[in-house]
Amino acid sequence: MAEIKRLPERALADRSELDAVLDAARVATLSTVADGRPLVVPVLFARDGDRLLVHGSTGAGALRVAAAGAPIAVSVALLDGLVYADSLFESSANYRSAVVSGVATVLTGDAAREALDRLSDALMPGRRAEVRTHLPKELAATLTLALPIDADNWTAKRRTGGPSAIEDPTVWSGVLPLHRSWGEPLPEPGMDAEVPPSVRALAGGPA
Amino acid sequence: MAEIKRLPERALADRSELDAVLDAARVATLSTVADGRPLVVPVLFARDGDRLLVHGSTGAGALRVAAAGAPIAVSVALLDGLVYADSLFESSANYRSAVVSGVATVLTGDAAREALDRLSDALMPGRRAEVRTHLPKELAATLTLALPIDADNWTAKRRTGGPSAIEDPTVWSGVLPLHRSWGEPLPEPGMDAEVPPSVRALAGGPA
Repeated sequence: MAEIKRLPERALADRSELDAVLDAARVATLSTVADGRPLVVPVLFARDGDRLLVHGSTGAGALRVAAAGAPIAVSVALLDGLVYADSLFESSANYRSAVVSGVATVLTGDAAREALDRLSDALMPGRRAEVRTHLPKELAATLTLALPIDADNWTAKRRTGGPSAIEDPTVWSGVLPLHRSWGEPLPEPGMDAEVPPSVRALAGGPA
Repeated sequence: MAEIKRLPERALADRSELDAVLDAARVATLSTVADGRPLVVPVLFARDGDRLLVHGSTGAGALRVAAAGAPIAVSVALLDGLVYADSLFESSANYRSAVVSGVATVLTGDAAREALDRLSDALMPGRRAEVRTHLPKELAATLTLALPIDADNWTAKRRTGGPSAIEDPTVWSGVLPLHRSWGEPLPEPGMDAEVPPSVRALAGGPA
């Protein structure tokens, strides 16, 4: 059988493709540099137009270094499946990934409050309408950072489809997809409340 | 209602707990430093006893920097669910995360071949018995790195359970779990082969 050569892995060049990768992820890795060494922390994040928003405790080390103006990279990687070829070398994984680099800005006051609202809307859509708003002491304990998405400070990649090359059609080759889904809500004991619309909207669906 | 204070988020101190987090993940973020800035790349990885193994194309930038002896951090983060509290501040996520830091060693010859076998066994259990072995040109095109896990070059964290604090029992609070599962195998067109044991063993099960 003639070797089939395809290009299932490619760099994404369009901003809309970057946005799609970022918007599909909820957890990112924030990488920065301290004393010449990498310092990393996983973060919940959201894209808000032309910026990434991340937040965390004012006690988190990597976030404090980022807040002090060190260069950072915020990266996401979503595994979409395993790719079985007829050799280990051509075996691979389908995935989407993105990296946005730069220096973050610390948000304060109304800008911080608005950013936390956007984060909530992205991570738990509809939840803001069901709970009270932020207290001043809560805003004070939260470090909120914005990283701009410019024309040239990002890269994104995606791999889809089957093996790039197949030599032997008698060996099974193909893709084993990976799915992410939300389960059923687990209520806290002792509450007097129905599962709210924000949770119902996600439960049992794709994540 | 009295405020309930728990400690659902904690640092994992036991090596066995680190291993469990690492072994549950397939994709890691490799972070290194180039020109004082973070350089990151997602990688497929595996733990092999007291070391992490990563591999990639000899053309990958961050891997080449790591291979040249720059300090690296290999990190994983698994989102396990969203935690709904009665305030946005106490809302959170359940997750497992780990970071292993140090300087990687480039593996060559038989050591590289053995490491690639271990990677295959971890990422696609049983697959090695179904395909041919590595060709010399394939080994030459693959950069294989090992990062030792020492007594003190790692951190791991895990958050489980519901909100840390609840003020208002009339607002629903609880957890929405995130599940990962393998789908059904998607065969390449034109093959003359049944779905093999390595793929059948994973298909439809938890990922």
